[in-house]
Amino acid sequence: MYYTIKWNGDSVSILDQRLLPLKEEYHTYTDFQSVADSITYMETRGAPAIGITAAMGIALAAKKSQAKNSNELKTELEKVLEIFAGTRPTAVNLFWTINRMRELINGNSDMAILKEVLEKEALAIYDEDIQANRQMGKNGSRFLEDGDTVMTHCNAGALATGGYGTALGVIRAAVEEGKKIEVIACETRPYLQGARLTTWELLKDQIPVTLITDNMSGHFMKEGRINKIVVGADRVAKNGDTANKIGTYTHSVLAKEHGIPFYIAAPLSTLDPETETGNDIVIEERSIDEVAFIKGVQIAPEGVKILNPSFDVTPAGNISAIITEKGVIEHPGGKGIMEIYSK
Amino acid sequence: MYYTIKWNGDSVSILDQRLLPLKEEYHTYTDFQSVADSITYMETRGAPAIGITAAMGIALAAKKSQAKNSNELKTELEKVLEIFAGTRPTAVNLFWTINRMRELINGNSDMAILKEVLEKEALAIYDEDIQANRQMGKNGSRFLEDGDTVMTHCNAGALATGGYGTALGVIRAAVEEGKKIEVIACETRPYLQGARLTTWELLKDQIPVTLITDNMSGHFMKEGRINKIVVGADRVAKNGDTANKIGTYTHSVLAKEHGIPFYIAAPLSTLDPETETGNDIVIEERSIDEVAFIKGVQIAPEGVKILNPSFDVTPAGNISAIITEKGVIEHPGGKGIMEIYSK
Repeated sequence: MYYTIKWNGDSVSILDQRLLPLKEEYHTYTDFQSVADSITYMETRGAPAIGITAAMGIALAAKKSQAKNSNELKTELEKVLEIFAGTRPTAVNLFWTINRMRELINGNSDMAILKEVLEKEALAIYDEDIQANRQMGKNGSRFLEDGDTVMTHCNAGALATGGYGTALGVIRAAVEEGKKIEVIACETRPYLQGARLTTWELLKDQIPVTLITDNMSGHFMKEGRINKIVVGADRVAKNGDTANKIGTYTHSVLAKEHGIPFYIAAPLSTLDPETETGNDIVIEERSIDEVAFIKGVQIAPEGVKILNPSFDVTPAGNISAIITEKGVIEHPGGKGIMEIYSK
Repeated sequence: MYYTIKWNGDSVSILDQRLLPLKEEYHTYTDFQSVADSITYMETRGAPAIGITAAMGIALAAKKSQAKNSNELKTELEKVLEIFAGTRPTAVNLFWTINRMRELINGNSDMAILKEVLEKEALAIYDEDIQANRQMGKNGSRFLEDGDTVMTHCNAGALATGGYGTALGVIRAAVEEGKKIEVIACETRPYLQGARLTTWELLKDQIPVTLITDNMSGHFMKEGRINKIVVGADRVAKNGDTANKIGTYTHSVLAKEHGIPFYIAAPLSTLDPETETGNDIVIEERSIDEVAFIKGVQIAPEGVKILNPSFDVTPAGNISAIITEKGVIEHPGGKGIMEIYSK
């Protein structure tokens, strides 16, 4: 069985998702900088998986530190936190993880104990994520009916999380309940997470999946071949506006046009009450080479101007429900996400 | 200066568009079957260019025929027409060309004269296309304002026609009138005509162009960075419903959502009063390898199910105007295209 990320006690093993679906290869890192690079260069990706990887990277930095006392260690770790904060700007789980680790760093003055609690916290973040995904699946599966064809975008699956997945977790839970579900996976240019990752993990689980290019989604909605849409999220603002992989907003407008329910599945760690609206979310711009080259093959002329925003923002009003491990926020448009915190 | 297709008297030269933008290579064919294959395998593409290529291929077949009399030649040519009719099913220009050639075949009983008139007709179809594009540009340029950023999908440019282009012809005409126009080109998966061809020909003309992936169009419309959309067409039904490259329908829904004018530019030969509505248009399904492989590089797992409709249908109601060489049909929704024939 494959895994996204694994803690080995004194190293971290990461599935190199850039090589999927052709090659299942794991890299084992014994230093935190390589773990940070694996986030930056998208060897691992997906908001929850980024959070877990950062947690393990920080625990690894503490464990491997040659610091002579706890003050020295804390100074070192502050730099480590900064390095992880700079890897990817949009996924809020990353900052949520960093804050959890920072609290422990501030709250522990014994060096040996600090190293230990950071390791435990990283493992707890990992375990909690898988549990959250399973609970999210249970909370969201009621929206999927026997016989549904469910479209998803990007990869919000086991590969984007500790395991099981957010959007794909909801689909997995429905399948486990005995519902017959077919999935349509949008390939998700430029990085092709749908073509490479979502299809790969659903084939492994023998859940029927059909791959389409992103620009086909409207056509198949018009043809009545898509019943529901479930996607993940990288950050959900206080008002319910949701940043997710570029293309999500387009699908949400099409869903509205065709009266197709559009669900977000995301753990509480992706909800960000500190961000008022979608306008306040920083959208990461990635290298234009991701658009100009596909696996090293050049598809655009030399020197052409290219834009590559990695995310877009779907307004809360286009979302039928936000599914979390703590409960479901139905029709977040106009009311936002705060009700989940009083549940 | 490049060209899409050229008649050499006893052969046809075709720019191999599959190699663009990295390589500008022309192939010269002395037999009609190779010309037909160049349409099937998309060495040349674009509804008007397909029509011209077929006309030249049919003229070539006549010229090269060893038939001993005109009856023998006509029997041969009937098979040739069938072969060309089977190359691509959606582009109506192909059938329009074939009908024009068939009328000449039926109307000429002298073998030498028939060969001559078929050659003349092929050249006339080519010349008329370029003239139509220039007139279309003049008719449509009034919709583009100085300072506009205009989005287009696929390639409806010089490379899709005899020269100048339909959608890009409208943009070229506006630029020739001194308007400052920037173009956003959607890459157009799976075949990447936008990334490979539209950018290439606009760079050659020094018209500012920015490449985006198809799934970014909604994001940039929401951001207010797209003022107009102009695309070509493969077939316009009597009621105004328009088949064009897959993804066009999605863009049209997004345009409606954001109040952005959405124009179709197409010659009369693309308008098909014989087809009542979009539901009657045959949508070509192409090889799934176009999705699974990009320039030979595999991007999807072995054995995954894939759908690859090459076109979609945009309802007339989503179209602000259909621009032809004979005039403009504004707001075709509810009234269709027949008014253009009485103009």
